Amino acid sequence: MTLASTRVTRETELSVIGKRIPRPDAPAKTRGTAQYVADIQRTGLLHAAVLRSPYPHARIRSLDVTAALALHGVKAVVTADDTPGRSWGAFRKDQPVLASDKVRYVGEEVAAVAAVDVETAREAVLLIEVDWEELSAVLSIDEALADGAALVHDDAPGNITYHFGLERGDVDAGFARSDVVVEGTWESARQFHAAIETIGSVAEWDLNDRLTIWTNTQTPFLSRGRYAWALGVAERDVRIIQTEVGGGFGGKSGDDNNPVVCALLARKAGRAVQLINTREEEFLAGSRPRMPMRYWVRLGVDRDGHVQAKDIKVLADNGAYTGKSIAVMGAASVRPDTLYRYPAVRADSTLVYTNLVPTGAFRGFGSPSADWAVEQAWDMAADELGMDVVELLRMNAVESGDVSLHNHRITSCELKQCIDKAAELIGWHHKRAQRTPNRGLGIACSVHVSGRRSFGDYDGSSAMVRLNEDGRATIISGEGEIGQGAGTVLRQIAAEELGIPFEDVDVTPSDTQLATHALGALASRVTYVAGNAVLRAARAARQQLLEAAAVQLETAVSDLEVRDGRVMVRGAPGAFGGGVLVGEVARKRLYQRGGGPILGVGEWDNPSDFPDESRYGNESGAYNFMAEAVEVEVDPETGNVQVLELAAAVDCGTVLNPTLAEGQVEGAVAQGLGLAQSETFAWSDGRPQNPNFGDYKLPTVGDMPIIHLAFAESYEPSGPFGAKGVGEIAVDGVPAAIANAVHDAVGVRITELPITAEKVYRAMREREAQR
Amino acid sequence: MTLASTRVTRETELSVIGKRIPRPDAPAKTRGTAQYVADIQRTGLLHAAVLRSPYPHARIRSLDVTAALALHGVKAVVTADDTPGRSWGAFRKDQPVLASDKVRYVGEEVAAVAAVDVETAREAVLLIEVDWEELSAVLSIDEALADGAALVHDDAPGNITYHFGLERGDVDAGFARSDVVVEGTWESARQFHAAIETIGSVAEWDLNDRLTIWTNTQTPFLSRGRYAWALGVAERDVRIIQTEVGGGFGGKSGDDNNPVVCALLARKAGRAVQLINTREEEFLAGSRPRMPMRYWVRLGVDRDGHVQAKDIKVLADNGAYTGKSIAVMGAASVRPDTLYRYPAVRADSTLVYTNLVPTGAFRGFGSPSADWAVEQAWDMAADELGMDVVELLRMNAVESGDVSLHNHRITSCELKQCIDKAAELIGWHHKRAQRTPNRGLGIACSVHVSGRRSFGDYDGSSAMVRLNEDGRATIISGEGEIGQGAGTVLRQIAAEELGIPFEDVDVTPSDTQLATHALGALASRVTYVAGNAVLRAARAARQQLLEAAAVQLETAVSDLEVRDGRVMVRGAPGAFGGGVLVGEVARKRLYQRGGGPILGVGEWDNPSDFPDESRYGNESGAYNFMAEAVEVEVDPETGNVQVLELAAAVDCGTVLNPTLAEGQVEGAVAQGLGLAQSETFAWSDGRPQNPNFGDYKLPTVGDMPIIHLAFAESYEPSGPFGAKGVGEIAVDGVPAAIANAVHDAVGVRITELPITAEKVYRAMREREAQR
Repeated sequence: MTLASTRVTRETELSVIGKRIPRPDAPAKTRGTAQYVADIQRTGLLHAAVLRSPYPHARIRSLDVTAALALHGVKAVVTADDTPGRSWGAFRKDQPVLASDKVRYVGEEVAAVAAVDVETAREAVLLIEVDWEELSAVLSIDEALADGAALVHDDAPGNITYHFGLERGDVDAGFARSDVVVEGTWESARQFHAAIETIGSVAEWDLNDRLTIWTNTQTPFLSRGRYAWALGVAERDVRIIQTEVGGGFGGKSGDDNNPVVCALLARKAGRAVQLINTREEEFLAGSRPRMPMRYWVRLGVDRDGHVQAKDIKVLADNGAYTGKSIAVMGAASVRPDTLYRYPAVRADSTLVYTNLVPTGAFRGFGSPSADWAVEQAWDMAADELGMDVVELLRMNAVESGDVSLHNHRITSCELKQCIDKAAELIGWHHKRAQRTPNRGLGIACSVHVSGRRSFGDYDGSSAMVRLNEDGRATIISGEGEIGQGAGTVLRQIAAEELGIPFEDVDVTPSDTQLATHALGALASRVTYVAGNAVLRAARAARQQLLEAAAVQLETAVSDLEVRDGRVMVRGAPGAFGGGVLVGEVARKRLYQRGGGPILGVGEWDNPSDFPDESRYGNESGAYNFMAEAVEVEVDPETGNVQVLELAAAVDCGTVLNPTLAEGQVEGAVAQGLGLAQSETFAWSDGRPQNPNFGDYKLPTVGDMPIIHLAFAESYEPSGPFGAKGVGEIAVDGVPAAIANAVHDAVGVRITELPITAEKVYRAMREREAQR
Repeated sequence: MTLASTRVTRETELSVIGKRIPRPDAPAKTRGTAQYVADIQRTGLLHAAVLRSPYPHARIRSLDVTAALALHGVKAVVTADDTPGRSWGAFRKDQPVLASDKVRYVGEEVAAVAAVDVETAREAVLLIEVDWEELSAVLSIDEALADGAALVHDDAPGNITYHFGLERGDVDAGFARSDVVVEGTWESARQFHAAIETIGSVAEWDLNDRLTIWTNTQTPFLSRGRYAWALGVAERDVRIIQTEVGGGFGGKSGDDNNPVVCALLARKAGRAVQLINTREEEFLAGSRPRMPMRYWVRLGVDRDGHVQAKDIKVLADNGAYTGKSIAVMGAASVRPDTLYRYPAVRADSTLVYTNLVPTGAFRGFGSPSADWAVEQAWDMAADELGMDVVELLRMNAVESGDVSLHNHRITSCELKQCIDKAAELIGWHHKRAQRTPNRGLGIACSVHVSGRRSFGDYDGSSAMVRLNEDGRATIISGEGEIGQGAGTVLRQIAAEELGIPFEDVDVTPSDTQLATHALGALASRVTYVAGNAVLRAARAARQQLLEAAAVQLETAVSDLEVRDGRVMVRGAPGAFGGGVLVGEVARKRLYQRGGGPILGVGEWDNPSDFPDESRYGNESGAYNFMAEAVEVEVDPETGNVQVLELAAAVDCGTVLNPTLAEGQVEGAVAQGLGLAQSETFAWSDGRPQNPNFGDYKLPTVGDMPIIHLAFAESYEPSGPFGAKGVGEIAVDGVPAAIANAVHDAVGVRITELPITAEKVYRAMREREAQR
């Protein structure tokens, strides 16, 4: 096949792609010299603190900032009166910057203070007097949907934020054809990003009333538009400079009020202001945690195991404000259907306002909640059929060339390879044949996009690549780096295409004034989408380089190639003294009559569709796939589940940098384990109790099982050097795989996250009681 | 004529060009928020001080830094041992970073200290013990050229740095044809730039051994190359970020050791280091002052006043190290010949090493020293001829289409208009007809380049113009802003070409990593050369905009135009609701299937020649011209010269921004007045006495005469919107015009700068004695 042979030819020549190149930003991060938002220094910088709602739902009868303003060292206090009074949000504009008449969740921003130091600012916050009228609150989906429930927003009757339904194929006929029908309802969890760095901003207005915000955002350009709207200023008057980002995971994608409040304070104080969330604020009202869903699934298969129909009903907890929740629920409702060859699916999905922290984008987006349910339903079906679930999944798995019911066109797909590798790595067949008491195996699969058309009919990227007279190349791109290694991968792509060493490529930070427009780090898009733009820019630059070299060396462009930073004659590496240094060619091209720099421009748009209202449309030009298998041991006395081994096999196309790709998969697995087993708070009156890292149990290195990683042999024809996205997918399957393994081990099925010892213990006791 | 009509058509349409647009950077500069190098903050920033030579010439027998290193708070001490031991320089690599075996002028860098604060660093410098062996020094051109003089550099016998000569046309025959031959020798002065901000740097090495220098340089890219060489590292490993620059005038064009020493300290300390010259250091060894020349001229004219020949002999004081002195002397030797129609010229020019502060580039480059001599020779010739000098200059003035003996091709020239305007504004004919005792009139002309091919066969610039989805445009250019208003003018050019308001255009700061290569602010090139690149980039962007709009509006590109930030139908301004906002078109073009940003690239190279060894070649694609006339009153009792009025008429092509152009001319006139009348130190043993602003007498606002400014009606066909350079020329003629006016007033001719009361008094007394 042409593609495969092209790939082989290319890969034998690759010198940067596929290599374990260490991240050049690592030394600065590990040794403390990287510049995070807390390191931004501006002359006269003030520090800020925020007064937040102590109630999940309350009316503000009056607000008095007199005492706060009078405190020595306080330079500005802002309230709703300082805002343009408009609500904002990515998909539904329902969130105020500072609450005016009422508050809707514990932690909501009410007022803020800027002072000479943060201690003074916090002291002043305590001096703000609020006359509260507590209102009855809806603290769960059930409370929100109950008759006569208090309304979170007056314009959302019944507390319904959003609803959509779809049916593709004849679902009823599918179930009629089915020999086995399973169903169940699963509850997923409000997981927090818990990035090491909390959200923070430094804002400063210049004397021409233009605002600069240094912030640790994942999406500088998209955030700019929202913040400008919230501030009531023109987008053109806001400049966002991305600082180093200490972890994003979706939680820093521009839905939070932090930078807006910071900007209001800076305007009022006439000085630069820094506002950095405390850990408690980050939990209460910072990054938007994963959206809990109640996910009902009915799945029908025939006696051979071929799937016939799937029906779901989703209720999703939006929290008090919307952010990206509509899209999260949409993805949870549709995306799993690109995993197996469903002939008919139905969905009915409802997003519900509650007086709880707003939920939002989190690594995996809707998939972890969907897979938690659907991948258990598949396990149940296998059980009912008396068939090995590995065989069942394999039989129904999509393949390259398939088109899903939602018109998702699958270009490259090695899902079966992933299932096989995961099963092999965990020792599936061997261990299922020779069972150990209280031990069990489980598997789950997932699919993810590589970018998604979400913001208008565009999911593209653009970049410039300069090949400089000093021999270095500079990638000008606005995509930025959020700690995931995007900068490293883009540099690899440019270096490979240019034929120069990795070390010789720089990439600009994301800055809305300097860099080209970019949607930023979301939807596992940067490698695939921005990588393609950078590839094209580098190709254009290389062409200019070769043309210049051809003139300088008096030879034909077609006779030349670039390798190891030198322009050489193809097949005659010794010619011209072993080739001419790229920097020499570039300098000569510049320093000549009519000279100029080498400057390539590249644009690329994801070959995808903007889904319609019913979410029909090929949302991404490429899909990545994954299978995760686990072995657990359940303590029959306590119900404690120990994950012994975990095998993750991922199809992300070409692995551009194994070290970084493994890091992404391992990190996602760790987050999946936390979601599955430990990450939860006790809540009281809409407030997590003790929102800190002592009480919110993130898995640590000591909690990690043996992890086996594998990447499928895969090549995505539309990807840069065959690559697809990889950043999110490996979080998705962990909870379902563990639940399936628990069932395999001790025969009980856990339907509510996290899978605690207590739940397993109770389920085992109930099961015994029923015997 | 085609050009003229094009111009008229364009000008009637111009909405940004030619307007008095205030500099957008002015508020920040006047209110203290602009970020100069002293404002750069880095974590753990150290502060530095330099041990400098107290002797003009001495051997370093030994150097002991033990005590300095032991001082509490000292983090690093560097000496020559920390340098790669190589000398550096723009045109001759003769300058060490830190002196090793010997020092060659007072102020030369010997060692440096970085400490927690500058007081500690300075204290530590005093603790460095040096065992000096004082050597005999050459402290003037005469001492340097004397038989048996001490050698400043062992490899420069006779202390000759550089020599060149030329003869074009038959000079002897010219003098033979001449009816009047005048001659004289003039001494020009070591003028200091005295920029409000001294030279300073912050240097920091990252963990990958790459160096970033924040510095107030005029030429980030050219400086980078030199500093990298001096440090012995690859140019690619040095990044220069231009801070705000508090005045350059040529003194911040990358010839000084400050950033290199700062970088050495930062490397040794492993921390960021700031090194900012004190005012005393700036005078002793900071910016390179104007090169004093002894300039002998012989000029021959026929009885009608037509020039027949000119011969010059130049001896120039290089100081201890070379920098750009070779080019300065070259310009002084050749450039004046592009002012009048000389049929034959000869030059013999010698650059001489002395044990004095190195001299270098200063506004006007070689011209103020040359014009000081040559324009007085013309005045003497007029005197001898009994002809009004205005008439004489006018008769010999070059015109558009002329080609000088050095092959300088004059495209646009309104020198005669300048002479007429200057004469008219000063009231020349009226006042010469009705003389007032002790009052006199003088006039002088000058020519300057608009860019010059100096660094290889390239004097180009490149730029990118992005037309952003927020409606703003961004100019990406590395040319930078040194306080002269370059950023404002480039923004005007882009705004005009794009058809959007000035306020909607941003320009990137100069940063060798982010911006396109640029030669920077030198040779009055930015408006003309970089302006042309920006114009072309903007034109490319506008074309992309129109193409996008044509698709969106379903009309032809040729039917559309951009005006006031809107795309409109030509001749139908009401169509499409008065047009579509540029930002809307750009956003729509981006947010579409296959979309992308609007991004224009522009390159332009000065249509000039790289002069040969004899300096033959058209050094610039355009020449600007100037005439300055002054009226003085000489106090017969004291010799004090009061300049009553000064008229400057400048041909800089189209005046892009009258406010800025006037500012350039007024500022240059002020520097010319300082050069002419007051700027001098008493020197002792190679050291200026009291190097401070109390003793170095800069003219202040109270010293200013009435100034009349005029710009010639002029249009340079190769310039952006018809513009040429304007930044330097008006300094050139002031000293000669005043000297000529003094002669007109009291009959004595001053041949040595500055024109002090004492010199005039002595000359008057001598003249009386001779009567």
